[in-house]
Amino acid sequence: MVGRDEPRAGELKVAEPIATDAGLVFIGRIHTPWAERLGCPRQGREDGPTCRIEVFEPWVAALDGITAFERLEVLYWLHKSRRDIVKQCPKSDGVAYGAFALRTPVRPNPIATQLVKLERVEGPNVFVRGLDCLDGTPLIDLKPDRCLFTPLAPKQAGDV
Amino acid sequence: MVGRDEPRAGELKVAEPIATDAGLVFIGRIHTPWAERLGCPRQGREDGPTCRIEVFEPWVAALDGITAFERLEVLYWLHKSRRDIVKQCPKSDGVAYGAFALRTPVRPNPIATQLVKLERVEGPNVFVRGLDCLDGTPLIDLKPDRCLFTPLAPKQAGDV
Repeated sequence: MVGRDEPRAGELKVAEPIATDAGLVFIGRIHTPWAERLGCPRQGREDGPTCRIEVFEPWVAALDGITAFERLEVLYWLHKSRRDIVKQCPKSDGVAYGAFALRTPVRPNPIATQLVKLERVEGPNVFVRGLDCLDGTPLIDLKPDRCLFTPLAPKQAGDV
Repeated sequence: MVGRDEPRAGELKVAEPIATDAGLVFIGRIHTPWAERLGCPRQGREDGPTCRIEVFEPWVAALDGITAFERLEVLYWLHKSRRDIVKQCPKSDGVAYGAFALRTPVRPNPIATQLVKLERVEGPNVFVRGLDCLDGTPLIDLKPDRCLFTPLAPKQAGDV
């Protein structure tokens, strides 16, 4: 869906959602080699270029300890994506798929999740490989890859 | 961090963020057996209880084709979480970690991502195993697990 603005034949459009149920704060900005949507990769690769995730204040202290993890999960906001096409034709051939059956950027809440390889951290800058997004993409969250993480907090009732 | 409201000794608190950079629409609600934060599991398990993800209109059509995937990625909004503690002590022992080095619900944008096993879809209801969230948690997104998904759209410049 990257790079497209108009619905295609066979797609199902709904009203643009009123998106006021919760609010996000952009906690940083992602710097990549890709300045245009049509130039981005469809999926990031761990042997792709090193990209720089810049974390804004007051969130830089939240990076403390992150270098313990070889891979991170990155959440970012797909700020160029429309949000109102629920059935989409990725091949432009009239065959439609639900947005939740695709990893398209066009979704009611255009949030991407990506697993990346952590290269290094320098102050507020986190250098990683594996991204596929536009230069200037707003950052929403960073987490350790769930496969590398064990909760530090004590177990509670739901843990059986 | 589940179940706590007050900062603990050794933690670093910042001002509550002004979260108006982007807006979310809650596209559904998650029904689980856990009515209290202290009763939730710390992490979901694929042999855990079946939970029901209820998708609201007009987004139900976006489920079309989702049963092709054995596992889904679920994004949800941790509506009970505070957003202002950047260094946290999960063991309450004074040893602090950055929020981005933890998978704590307490983060500037309290969005959880979880991989779940898809059991079945009945109309607007998606039945899955592997969740760990409170009953009534707002749904933000559903995607195919990235490991099971290959882009359908043609390659573009960034794909080398």
